[in-house]
Formats: sequence, C-alpha cells, structure tokens
Amino acid sequence: MTTTTTYKAWELKSFSLQDVAATAREESRLEPHQVRIAVKAVSLNFRDLLVARGHYNPKLPLPVVPLSDGAGEVVAVGDLVSKFKKGDRVMPNFMPDWIAGEVSPDAAKTALGGFVDGMLREQATFNESALVHIPPHLSYEEAATLPCAALTAWSALMVNGALKPGETVLTMGSGGVSIFALQLAKAAGARVIATSGANEKLKRLKELGADTLINYKEHPNWDELVLEATGGSGVDHVVEVGGAGTLERSMKAARMNGHVSVIGVLDGISGSLNAIALIMKSLRLQGVFVGSRSRFEDMNKAISLHGIKPVVGKVFAADEITEALSYMASGQHFGKIVLKL
Amino acid sequence: MTTTTTYKAWELKSFSLQDVAATAREESRLEPHQVRIAVKAVSLNFRDLLVARGHYNPKLPLPVVPLSDGAGEVVAVGDLVSKFKKGDRVMPNFMPDWIAGEVSPDAAKTALGGFVDGMLREQATFNESALVHIPPHLSYEEAATLPCAALTAWSALMVNGALKPGETVLTMGSGGVSIFALQLAKAAGARVIATSGANEKLKRLKELGADTLINYKEHPNWDELVLEATGGSGVDHVVEVGGAGTLERSMKAARMNGHVSVIGVLDGISGSLNAIALIMKSLRLQGVFVGSRSRFEDMNKAISLHGIKPVVGKVFAADEITEALSYMASGQHFGKIVLKL
Amino acid sequence: MTTTTTYKAWELKSFSLQDVAATAREESRLEPHQVRIAVKAVSLNFRDLLVARGHYNPKLPLPVVPLSDGAGEVVAVGDLVSKFKKGDRVMPNFMPDWIAGEVSPDAAKTALGGFVDGMLREQATFNESALVHIPPHLSYEEAATLPCAALTAWSALMVNGALKPGETVLTMGSGGVSIFALQLAKAAGARVIATSGANEKLKRLKELGADTLINYKEHPNWDELVLEATGGSGVDHVVEVGGAGTLERSMKAARMNGHVSVIGVLDGISGSLNAIALIMKSLRLQGVFVGSRSRFEDMNKAISLHGIKPVVGKVFAADEITEALSYMASGQHFGKIVLKL
Amino acid sequence: MTTTTTYKAWELKSFSLQDVAATAREESRLEPHQVRIAVKAVSLNFRDLLVARGHYNPKLPLPVVPLSDGAGEVVAVGDLVSKFKKGDRVMPNFMPDWIAGEVSPDAAKTALGGFVDGMLREQATFNESALVHIPPHLSYEEAATLPCAALTAWSALMVNGALKPGETVLTMGSGGVSIFALQLAKAAGARVIATSGANEKLKRLKELGADTLINYKEHPNWDELVLEATGGSGVDHVVEVGGAGTLERSMKAARMNGHVSVIGVLDGISGSLNAIALIMKSLRLQGVFVGSRSRFEDMNKAISLHGIKPVVGKVFAADEITEALSYMASGQHFGKIVLKL
Repeated sequence: MTTTTTYKAWELKSFSLQDVAATAREESRLEPHQVRIAVKAVSLNFRDLLVARGHYNPKLPLPVVPLSDGAGEVVAVGDLVSKFKKGDRVMPNFMPDWIAGEVSPDAAKTALGGFVDGMLREQATFNESALVHIPPHLSYEEAATLPCAALTAWSALMVNGALKPGETVLTMGSGGVSIFALQLAKAAGARVIATSGANEKLKRLKELGADTLINYKEHPNWDELVLEATGGSGVDHVVEVGGAGTLERSMKAARMNGHVSVIGVLDGISGSLNAIALIMKSLRLQGVFVGSRSRFEDMNKAISLHGIKPVVGKVFAADEITEALSYMASGQHFGKIVLKL
Repeated sequence: MTTTTTYKAWELKSFSLQDVAATAREESRLEPHQVRIAVKAVSLNFRDLLVARGHYNPKLPLPVVPLSDGAGEVVAVGDLVSKFKKGDRVMPNFMPDWIAGEVSPDAAKTALGGFVDGMLREQATFNESALVHIPPHLSYEEAATLPCAALTAWSALMVNGALKPGETVLTMGSGGVSIFALQLAKAAGARVIATSGANEKLKRLKELGADTLINYKEHPNWDELVLEATGGSGVDHVVEVGGAGTLERSMKAARMNGHVSVIGVLDGISGSLNAIALIMKSLRLQGVFVGSRSRFEDMNKAISLHGIKPVVGKVFAADEITEALSYMASGQHFGKIVLKL
Repeated sequence: MTTTTTYKAWELKSFSLQDVAATAREESRLEPHQVRIAVKAVSLNFRDLLVARGHYNPKLPLPVVPLSDGAGEVVAVGDLVSKFKKGDRVMPNFMPDWIAGEVSPDAAKTALGGFVDGMLREQATFNESALVHIPPHLSYEEAATLPCAALTAWSALMVNGALKPGETVLTMGSGGVSIFALQLAKAAGARVIATSGANEKLKRLKELGADTLINYKEHPNWDELVLEATGGSGVDHVVEVGGAGTLERSMKAARMNGHVSVIGVLDGISGSLNAIALIMKSLRLQGVFVGSRSRFEDMNKAISLHGIKPVVGKVFAADEITEALSYMASGQHFGKIVLKL
Repeated sequence: MTTTTTYKAWELKSFSLQDVAATAREESRLEPHQVRIAVKAVSLNFRDLLVARGHYNPKLPLPVVPLSDGAGEVVAVGDLVSKFKKGDRVMPNFMPDWIAGEVSPDAAKTALGGFVDGMLREQATFNESALVHIPPHLSYEEAATLPCAALTAWSALMVNGALKPGETVLTMGSGGVSIFALQLAKAAGARVIATSGANEKLKRLKELGADTLINYKEHPNWDELVLEATGGSGVDHVVEVGGAGTLERSMKAARMNGHVSVIGVLDGISGSLNAIALIMKSLRLQGVFVGSRSRFEDMNKAISLHGIKPVVGKVFAADEITEALSYMASGQHFGKIVLKL
C-alpha cells in the first residue's frame, strides 16, 4: 500500500494571461529510466505569451501547465537511470524526445508548455535521455533561461550557421534569443552588430560585447548602416527575430551567400518576401526551432568554458505568473524573465 | 602588320524584344590563357526575357549581346592554354569567373548576357578557366541548354540539397530548370512529383521519369495532393520556380526540415511569406543562382554517365531572336528554346 | 498469477565456432514502449566471426546470443507503442539506442550480438524507437541482411560521402558491405569500379551493375588500373573493406580530396599508413561503424523505390549456426549468409 | 625602347642547405591582371627543409627559388587590376591558383617554393587573384608567417573541423602550425590541450592561451592524460603534426567521431595505422594541405578582429638562408623563423 504524494502545478485554464491557477497533482510512479526533479526556477519566452493568449495554436487542449523552460534538482531516479543521481542539478530539453540529429515530427510533439505540460510546477518527471546537467557556475534562475532561448541561438549560429571566428553576426533587439546570440557569437570569436530601439539598451549590449551598435528607431534604414559597417558587403549571419516585419531589411543587410536565421515573429507573422533578392544574393532563410539534447550538451560546454552568465532581467514568484506574462507583453524587459519556485 | 577580322554579333539596342540587331565586331587579340570559340548554338532562359524587357535591371547599359548560354567549337588558343585545343567542343560557364566554392560578388558581375556581353554572336573569347567540355553524346543545340538551367537545377539538388536516393523532389511546370531537375533527380535515384497545368505536358514529364503527376489547374490545392502522395510527411526538396506566387503552397508541401530551392519568379517577384510556418517546420529557403565551373564539370559527369538528353523544345535561327523571345513569352514551350548559328 | 512462456535462444558458450548451443529463456514482461517480435531470419557478418572466435573483444562476457542482424514479425506491443502493431514486419537497428545524429559512446554499447544479446533467438524485445519497417518487396531472409552490412554501406556513401550522381565508387570483393555499396551506389547514379579475385564473381558483380571490373589477383597493381579507368584522376569514394592490407593501394586509387571509407579489416587489422600521401592528396580516411535508425529509414526508402534485392548467398537453419560460421570463414560466399528460424 | 630592370633572387642550386645563392633576374613585363610586389619578408616551414634536402620530391627541377611564404609591398599593377594599388601590403597564397572551394590537381601544381619559384627574392609577380591584404596590425615579418602555417591550421580547424566554441583541441609541440592552431582555436572559443617536450615551451604555450599542458617527454603515455583531462571522452580535434610516429596515440586521444587533422610528418613519414580503432571510434583522419585564397581572406578577418600576433621566433637576413634552415633543422625554435629582405 502506497501513500500518494501531491505537488503544486499551475495551469492555464483558458486563453487569458489572467487565468492561470495553482492546483494539486498526484505524483506518478517512477519508471525504470525516469528521473523526478523538484523544479526550482522557470523562465518565460515569447512563445509562452502566444500560448497563453491562444495565438500559438487555438486547438491547444486546456488546461495545460505553461512554460517550456525550467531547472531543478533531482529528487528521485528510476532503477535503470545511469547518468543522473539524487541531488544533481538538471534541465529538461525543450523537446524531451529530440535527442540528436534533425528534429522529427514525433519529437516536435513533445515540446513542453504546448500540447504537453510545461515546467510551472513543483515537480516534473522525465526520461533521463531528456535531461542535461546545469553548468556549475549557474544558479537555478540562470539555468532556467537556457532551454529555449539559448539553444535556439546556438542552433542558429553554431549548428545551422557553422559560425567561424572573424565572421559578423547581426542581432536585433534585446530579447532572450538576441542576447544569447550576442554572447555565444562573442564566445565563438565573431564580431557582433547589435540593434535596439533604445540607447540605454544599446549601452548594455555593448557591455555584453557588441562591437557595433545601431539604434533602429533613430535609423529606420538600419540595413544601410549595417552595410556601411561591413565595408559594403553585409553580415554573414542575421539572427532575425522580428519576423515578417523586418525580413526585407535583414536580407539587404546580409552578404551574398548570407545566412538569415528566421526565429521570431515579434514584428509580424506574415509579410512580404522579395524572391529576386533571395535568388540574386543566394541567400539562405533558415527556420530555427530550438534544438536537440545533444546540442544542449554542446552548448553547455561553451557556456561553462566561457563562464557565460545569462542576463536575468527580472525575477517573479511562481504565483506572480500573470504579472510576469504581462511584464513580458509590455516589452520593457532586457534579458530573461524568471519565476522562482 | 595584322589584318582585322570581324564577326557578327546581335545586340539588344533598347529594352524591347523587337530591338535586337546584328552588327559587326572586330576580333580581339588572344591573350596567353584565352580560348576563342565559334559559337554554334545558344539557348534562351526566362532571365533573357527579363533582360530584354528591361525588368532584370533597368540600369543595364545598352547595347549588350544578349543570352547567357551557348556552345561552340574552339578555333584558336593562346600560348599558355593547356586544357583545350583547336576543334574541342566547349561551353562557357554562366559566370566565367566563378571557378569553385561559393559565388563571390566579383564573380557574379561576370554573368553573361547581363552587364557583360552574352553568347548571341558568331565568336566569343574566354579565359580557359571559364570553359568546360561538352559531353560527347550531346549536339551543340543540346549543349547550349546546359549552362544556366541545368546547372541551376544541379546546384539546387546536388550541391545545396545533397540529394540522397529515395528522397522525393517536387518540380513545378515544364520550363528548363524544372525538366533538368526532373532528369537529374531521377539520375540521382530520387522520386519525383511533377506538377503542370496541362495534361499533355504531364504525360511528357511522365515519359521523362516523373513518378507522380499533379495538374495544378485541376487541383488548385496541389500541396494537399503532394502531402497525400508522401504519406502526409511532405517532400524533401522543392524546386520552386514560381516565386512569390507559389511559395506558400511549396512550404506546405515540404516536409519538416525540408529544403525549398527558390530559383524562379515566373509567378510573382514579391509575395507573402509565412514566417511561423518557416520556423515551426524548420524549413530552409535557399536562393539559387546557377553555379561554378567546378560544379558544371561535376554535372557533366552525371549527364554523360546517364546519357541524359536535354529536351529541346524548338530551334530558331539566330536572326529569329525576336521570334524566339516572343515564343518563350507565350509560355507554350516544353523544354528549352534554342537558336542555331 | 502468470504463466511463464519460454522461447529458444542460441548462446555462444565459449570463443569457438563449435560452441553455440540452444537454450530456453523466459519471456520478460513488456514495458509500455516495448515491442516483442518473433524472429524469422538472421544474417551473418564478418564481425560475428570475430565475436565467435574471441577476436572482437576478448573481454566479452559469455554466454551471449550471437548475431547482430535479424528480421521478424511483431507479436505483441506495449500500451504506449504508437508506430507498430501486431503483424508488422520489422528489423531492429544494429545499435538499438542510436536513433539519429552521430553515434554516442552510450549508444555504441547497445550494439547487438556483442556485449548485448543478439538476434539468434526465437523472440526478442525492443523499444519501439529501435525498430524499422521491412520494405514490402523483401522477404524476412532478405531483410535480415540489411541492419549491419547495408546500413554501413549507406552511411559510408550517402551520409559521410554525400555521393553525387556521376561520381565513381570503388568497391572491393563480394562480401556483404561491398555488394550493398555497389547496389546503393548504382541507385544513386554513380559509376562503380568493382574488384574481385575471381572472374566468376566479377561476372556476377557486373550483373548487379558494376561498370568496370578488375581482378586483383591477375592485377596485383590494381590501383593503376583504377587510375587508368578514371583518366588518371582516381575515384571519388573507396569502400575499403580490406583494412590495413589494402589501404595503401586504396589511397593511391583515390582522387585528390578523395574519400576512403574504412569499414573492414578482412586483409589485416594493423598496417602501414603513408602520411605524406594522405596530406598531399588531402585525403579523408573515415572510419564507419553502421548507422542510426533514422539513416536506416532513409535507406529503406531508397531500397523500396529502386526495388533493390539483397543478394542472399546461402540459407542455413538456425541450428546450423556452426556450419554457417564456418562457411563464412571459408570465404566462398557471394553475398550474405542467412539463417532461417 | 625599354630598359631592363633586374632584381636579386636566391636559388637552391642542389639539394643541400649550403647551396643557396643569390643571382640576378630580369623583371618581366606586367600582364593586365598582374601585380608586382617588392618582397619584404619571408618565413620558413618544415616543408622548405624537406625541399632543400631533396626529401620533398627528388624530381624537383633545380635551380628553384625556395620558400613558399612571403609578404611585400605592391610596386606596380597591370592595367586591369582592380583590387590592389601601389603601396598596398600583400601576401600571395601558398598555391596562387587555388582561389576557392576544394584544391584541384592543377592548382596544387602552383605551390610556391616547390615546382614553382618561391618567395626568397626581392621581387615577385602574381595575378591579382592570388593575393590577399595584410591585416593592418601586422608587420611584414609577422605577415610572412601566415601563408602556409596559419592557413593550414585554419583549414584544419575551421574549414574541415567546423570547430564550435566549447570544443577541445589537442596541439602537439610548438612549431608554426601548432602555435597558430592554438591561437586560432582560442579565438574560436575552444579549449586547448597543448603538448611539448620542454617545460619552458609549455610555459610559453600557456601564455598564448593553452588551457591544459602536457610534457610528452615526462609522460610518454600522454594520450592517457588527454583522456583524463576530458573526463575520459577524448578531444574533438587533434592537430597531428607528428605524422606516423604519433598517430596511434592521437587516435586514442580523440573522442568517438573525433577529427584528426593529419598535417605534418615531423616524427615519421610512414607508420602503423590501427584500422580497428579507426572504425570502432568512427574517427576521421583528414589530410590537410594549406588552403584557398578565399579561406586566407576569412582567416585574416579573424586575425584582425582578435589582434592575433604570430609568434616570430627568430629573424635572419636573406643572405643567412643557410643559417636559417640549419636553425630550423636543430628544432630549437619556438614559433616561426623569418628572413628579412
């Protein structure tokens, strides 16, 4: 006879930032390859805002535990678990079933905080193959920012882009992916041109290593400044988070044979594409959707070696999830928004 | 004391299909690494129509000898030429200075029939590094079709796409690039789904090896038929020649991680891009603009080994250049339009 | 109360071809993601001979069920299995835990018929992620030949080699990997130069599609014939199964920048390497050790599309395992040796 | 009427370090695409020692101007030269005809200081396509060290290796390639394990950024220390300059799927290769022979951005060529040996 243990989970009840509520869930039995973790911190991504508003996929069945990204401590391991032990500090991969290679449709369905319960809960259980160790120099709050935003930047630049030292990367704004792209590009020996609409944010991007700064509000034709800063040739890699609204300028700012990572849609989901420019410059527009556990491990080696510290913009308590989402919606943040459990 | 020899060249005098006229040009002195060829046949590409109408680049200085693609016989070689001799049958690369690797901005400027004189002339002189041998089983008329259309299809599928046997390729219509894509994809052991708006053209595509046929006029939602024909997963490679007008359906027809080669703009230069679809499916949109001489040599090995015969749709005399351009504009052709000198 | 079901398994008791004996094993409980298969056929690889003789790894704990390759019918599925159902015809991947991407040390430890029980048994249970469907046109005997030999050839040529149509592949002899390399290379549109020490085997290789044949016994300097057959330039890919004994000639037969897949050691485990030749020709020697389940699925698409039939050289009964191993040791076979259950 | 100008060139008269003598050569006419440079500094590579001793290729026709690497000032340009002007500081590529992509047999024949005259002369003339600009922060002496040694390290790690930040590189000793590999790997964000037989040299390697140091004389089983320093997994990339004499340990020190760049033969031209190890670890042995002009330009961007300073070990006068070669032969040097003109 076993006594049932319960833990607290927050659930999105309807598509509204206001309608997230705590509930009690029963702990499940641990399978031989499973690891149970006590979640210590979670972080927010723009995708979580889309989910909560019902813009991500209106067919998403509710209630669901929101937020894809979290970090925690191992509290129990199944009989056959070999890579983790009680007390280990770990993070689950954004798509727990994406282990290595390219993403498969099956693995994509396991993305956390979408069709599958996410991390805003005290406890979560994963197959050991879904987990990675937290780099030793990072706190739980810092680690919680990595799974989606950092790994997306890594996939874009290091996997798809095969970034070489001396190449130039263009980042846009100061959201999570953009700041990680800046930090990782600098760790890889690249030059970074960073844009932002606010001079105080540009100053902070400079402190993080940006080589060239452009205020796109002061210079709406910012692509021309990018060309100027690269001797007329354009950048090797664009980390495009604006989406349809900025893509045309991004393509102008890229060099011949350049690589434009299409990651975000902050500035518009659907927009105009100039096919002639794509062809004449032999550009590559590459959609990026996070990465595999294997890439996550590779990235953590770089984060550890370089002592990279994620930029945590603001920390909330778990119960302040509505405030946290609203804060993200306001666009005031610089770096990642974190909730502590 | 040297006597000057002249040869006939056709020049585009103004941006009009009607305004192409023959003129006499003086033969230039042969530099040590140069090869002089007697042009025997040239072929038309959609780009030549854009050039002649002034749609390619309105700043193009006129007059210019039009048409990028041609084949001929070596009639003289410079003192240091080592790879060609009198009597050899050769073709110049579309961009004579693009030898290997990625295209450079400098090499792109040497594209024939644009800012640089093209092939509609009795005689042309090239550095030996710009030339390739004609596969032995091809006539001059057939060879003249290769430089732009075939090499573009090769770059898309074999270089950018690293096509594997058993993969599925989607081709659109029956223009030059599409038919070469079909022939080369079959030579590489792929499965081909071909679309066309005419059933008699579909029949001919089937004869050329297409495995699955779709009439996009009868089935405006042709992307759904493509998904059906691939068990719901989508194709590995799309050879997208429609441009902005067809891109949205092409992206729907591609599998997760699929590769869409953006090659042509037959159906619209600028159009709508759905950034969310690009991201969620990790698609790659790759602009393709012909290829290097080294790729041309690689392709010719495949063409020779498989005895691939380019589909020549209609042959005109050189003086019928206006008729030939108009015929292309009418869209009636199946395969390549060639002019004989 | 459950009744235990037993099945027959053959075990290697000591390192001797003679010491393989049948034993009864108890059926284990099916986990939620597991699939139980009734093994219908298994095939032999040179590795199995090394294992049985104790040459593979003398520390291998015995007894072990030998043979890595098998095919069977699904007889039961766990509650959460989604990709397979009773009656499906399937094969397990050589390394059941290698799903996609590069091989990891952990996945390598799961190789069947080595440290983990292999396929010479009536029944075997795998996680569904380890299985692939058998191409419809293949019998169990034919399918049983694919997991190790065919996938190794695929990894060498299609994954590592990114084989293009028109390229030339050199195969050596008529063992399993070499014949699959020939069949797959032809499906991919390559030209194949095949060597063998017996003219009747060369004749069969020609029937399978080989373009150029070399008897290496009649021509001990066979590398010179390869160069001659390639206009002096050498082949693009060598499928090197001889190992140290043939490597020096293989490197001479390869073109500048050529790719030598080091797969087998039929002719010597350790031998001389000419480092200067490796450097001056920018050669790549790539060790190949089978492949992932994802590659297996890709290969099966090609095998299905082209209707490739594995060459089954001889079929034994399961109880004739010693005879089968001895037959392989004799080197008389052409194609694969199969055991039927 | 033109007066002929002469310049001084040093020629290797016979295969002996002692038999290099100055001679007067006549300046040639400048072709339209040629650039004439006044050579200011040259550097030595191990290959130059092999050439001078007749070990590189005994069929090398003499006399020849030795040394592949040099830097100089543009003193005249042909009529059609567009990328360089008088006064520019430039370096020729090691193989002047290797512009981009993979090396071709034809381009390989143009390697300087072998079958073609090298750089130990006051004046040299090249096609503009063979030249690159010297990074502004480098002197002629420093620049002269780049063409062979630095570009080889770049090709190995950045082109063939696609090095990612956080990966680990193993360098051997303190010759030119090894030190550049160390500096470039650090610029790319990698971790470097450096070996040397002398503790004072290890100290200097540490100053240049090496993370982990191993004295291979004190630890003949240095591969075990490499494994220990990588948690048992082995390094991602080995920059193998020892050749046959060290290859077996290098392969042990590499991780599964690891990349061993075979570059030098300091410790033996021909030696034993363990084919089983190559296969079981899926290792890649990649011969490396310098790089293209395009790669040279890419590398210079990294050298400029990171302000990398080549380590010049000792500077001689041009007339001291015999002393310089003997000094290299003694193996006392740390970094590059340079001659000033």
